[in-house]
Amino acid sequence: MADSPNCDLKSLTPLQLFERVTEQGEKVRALKAGKAPKDEIDAAVRMLLSLKLSYKTTTGQDYQAGLPPKDLVLINNGTTKEEDEDLVDPWNVQTSNAKGVDYDKLIVRFGSSKIDTDLINRIERATGQKPHHFLRRGIFFSHRDMDQVLDAYENKKPFYLYTGRGPSSQAMHVGHLIPFLFTKWLQEVFDVPLVIQLTDDEKYLWKDMTIEKAYEYARENAKDIIACGFDINKTFIFSDLDYLGTSAGFYRNIVKVQKHVTFNQVKGIFGFTDSDCIGKISFPAIQAAPSFSSSFPQIFNGKDNIQCLIPCAIDQDPYFRMTRDVAPRIGQPKPALLHSVFFPALQGAQTKMSASDPNSSIFLTDTPKQIKTKINKHAFSGGRDTIEEHRKYGGNCDVDVSFMYLTFFLEDDDRLEQLKQAYTSGELLTGELKKVLIETMQPLVAAHQERRKQVTDEIVKQFMTPRKLAFEF
Amino acid sequence: MADSPNCDLKSLTPLQLFERVTEQGEKVRALKAGKAPKDEIDAAVRMLLSLKLSYKTTTGQDYQAGLPPKDLVLINNGTTKEEDEDLVDPWNVQTSNAKGVDYDKLIVRFGSSKIDTDLINRIERATGQKPHHFLRRGIFFSHRDMDQVLDAYENKKPFYLYTGRGPSSQAMHVGHLIPFLFTKWLQEVFDVPLVIQLTDDEKYLWKDMTIEKAYEYARENAKDIIACGFDINKTFIFSDLDYLGTSAGFYRNIVKVQKHVTFNQVKGIFGFTDSDCIGKISFPAIQAAPSFSSSFPQIFNGKDNIQCLIPCAIDQDPYFRMTRDVAPRIGQPKPALLHSVFFPALQGAQTKMSASDPNSSIFLTDTPKQIKTKINKHAFSGGRDTIEEHRKYGGNCDVDVSFMYLTFFLEDDDRLEQLKQAYTSGELLTGELKKVLIETMQPLVAAHQERRKQVTDEIVKQFMTPRKLAFEF
Repeated sequence: MADSPNCDLKSLTPLQLFERVTEQGEKVRALKAGKAPKDEIDAAVRMLLSLKLSYKTTTGQDYQAGLPPKDLVLINNGTTKEEDEDLVDPWNVQTSNAKGVDYDKLIVRFGSSKIDTDLINRIERATGQKPHHFLRRGIFFSHRDMDQVLDAYENKKPFYLYTGRGPSSQAMHVGHLIPFLFTKWLQEVFDVPLVIQLTDDEKYLWKDMTIEKAYEYARENAKDIIACGFDINKTFIFSDLDYLGTSAGFYRNIVKVQKHVTFNQVKGIFGFTDSDCIGKISFPAIQAAPSFSSSFPQIFNGKDNIQCLIPCAIDQDPYFRMTRDVAPRIGQPKPALLHSVFFPALQGAQTKMSASDPNSSIFLTDTPKQIKTKINKHAFSGGRDTIEEHRKYGGNCDVDVSFMYLTFFLEDDDRLEQLKQAYTSGELLTGELKKVLIETMQPLVAAHQERRKQVTDEIVKQFMTPRKLAFEF
Repeated sequence: MADSPNCDLKSLTPLQLFERVTEQGEKVRALKAGKAPKDEIDAAVRMLLSLKLSYKTTTGQDYQAGLPPKDLVLINNGTTKEEDEDLVDPWNVQTSNAKGVDYDKLIVRFGSSKIDTDLINRIERATGQKPHHFLRRGIFFSHRDMDQVLDAYENKKPFYLYTGRGPSSQAMHVGHLIPFLFTKWLQEVFDVPLVIQLTDDEKYLWKDMTIEKAYEYARENAKDIIACGFDINKTFIFSDLDYLGTSAGFYRNIVKVQKHVTFNQVKGIFGFTDSDCIGKISFPAIQAAPSFSSSFPQIFNGKDNIQCLIPCAIDQDPYFRMTRDVAPRIGQPKPALLHSVFFPALQGAQTKMSASDPNSSIFLTDTPKQIKTKINKHAFSGGRDTIEEHRKYGGNCDVDVSFMYLTFFLEDDDRLEQLKQAYTSGELLTGELKKVLIETMQPLVAAHQERRKQVTDEIVKQFMTPRKLAFEF
């Protein structure tokens, strides 16, 4: 509940909330009917949406006119979806907008906070480092409680990083690297321990895949993650299938979360149904548990009060909203979060990437030639239909996938700005922009492949062995 | 499905089954209305019950006249309860009959098999040992696939025993020993490995209890179990909270079961609701997993095809019906089962024992004086109201709790038969029968206490350490 954007409504009963929503709906209708000023109507609509969100947060049910709340489900669920809104949950990302998901709306709906200039400046002051371009460019755009993490950090209180990946296939694409590249930067500038969860059990439960295959993918994916350059002395990577059978601390936290979350709640948060297997239904607790330092007694010396910070794509937020709801009830600190936007498919920003479609992105195994062909053939262009029109009206960077990819991977701010201006003005043609992207991605992927070759099975084993890291707790 | 007593009905669709039940109901009504011979009506009613059971087994729903099946849930659920039937599930045992639950009816409802004289004789031939009095006296009364276990045993194929306890409190009563005493005998006569699960996670999930307390009870209960005299070289006792964090094999089997059981199924089998926590909903997989030898790679050398035999009270059968349903789908052998009756409360056989009511049974910590007082004061008597009437009409052993307790604990068959005759004829008075019980229980409990004192924390630790046992696989 503490994550609700409507804290003043917390004391209302579900029935009182129901009545407030109904009243506000009538008010909006009256304003519209009376042709009231636009800003007055807008304010009333915002209030209505906010009340509906509170209603859903409190009852776990969508508000339905004329149907008072039946059953009390006290969850912190901000996934209410209006008709024209984007669909974002751990398994689906859908938007009808070529620019991609409307992230400002998502912040309001999820009840998180925008990463603004003040916060970015504060991170710069605290670490003494220039903020990562993912922060400067709004790729990590939303957070929960990052201020608290910085408060603690400035007072020499430790925290740790937690991120993860669902190893659904051997093939990872460049988009999969985003959370890891950013997490690596965070680890370096804050000098903190990092745990990386590979949810092979989740993939076994959700996909038509054997347990052995899921575990194999976890170990293969670990190689690509390690190739990002994580410090072996400060990083613990674990497969659930392995680590759950290695750590009593981890299982105890899982069962604690499982005791404090009902089926009604996961139904509301994740959309599970009665036909779902009980493994799926209880899985959210397994993704929640690494948010608590007592899941890693070997790292934190048994301490259960170390603050956790989770960098992840925004679609993973439902897991951690649930985790933050449970945390105080099991005597643990709430994890803080940093949310990233989605990485667009080559074909356009309307959907999340798919590891199963080789043409949907640039894969970490692609050859320079494959990269060139894919970008030239599949990267959705924001350019005009003819050279003449393009020169006259310019290209649209907001929907151009080559430009979006450069936002992620071209570190030079000045160069990116030049490209944007040249493309928007029509000076730079689509083919030329694609060429810049090709020349950016080819060496980046080749370097990754080179580093990955050096990641032996022995190194993977070391990263995945539960052990003390180079920190004292 | 293979456990259904109506195999010939297996090929029918839910709708066809619905129509068969409806037709049969009309037939019964017609026979009753036409005052048909009793045996004809009885046969038709049996067929009706059998069809209703098949309907429930196939659809997961109770048959309701006029309401055809909505949703297909293919589970093997035999818990259909008729109006006048006993209620038996892992959390409730209720009967209105002073003699206790009608176990013959339970066999039909659960679709298990009666342990008959043929099977008892076969066990005697296979082991060369006189069958345990729990077998001779029908205390273990029902089974699933015990023939197969004996077939394999006679062909020198190995099996192992699995039983368990939910450590809900420190206090165990003599009834709690029944499965362990019988399991110990089975282990001795068959010379096989034994695993004993202490479901401390279950108790944490179900009770208002900390995780630490549940784990403490598990270790305390282990002392009482060890005091039964199990061979440390052949027995592995484990707490879920501990072992789940020690064995990757165990978690893998849990997640395999969890993938193959839906919420609809556990709802049908265990009566879970949407308000239950996700820990309860997924727990049945944790009780299922020790039925598969790959949960214990240290004992079975990684082999996943060793047959399991589970001695348990009949109320635990729903867990293992579910397990047997899942087993072939995850490539594992179905566990076989031996079911015991319930141990009656001192106050009468209508309910299962309660560890929270000190007067409901004889506890393993009771002094000789407490035992004497409890039996004299609380043991429900089947004797007559006055000595004169008792002498004239005799007592009723079927409802007399002292006599029931002697059936469990007085090993001498001849003496038990003498007592029965003398009590039934009125020769033996209630006070005299109670005196025999007191003299039976006092030394039995004292001896247990003596053995328990010798069970040090170090011995408990050894029993609970995952290790190889004295068998080759």
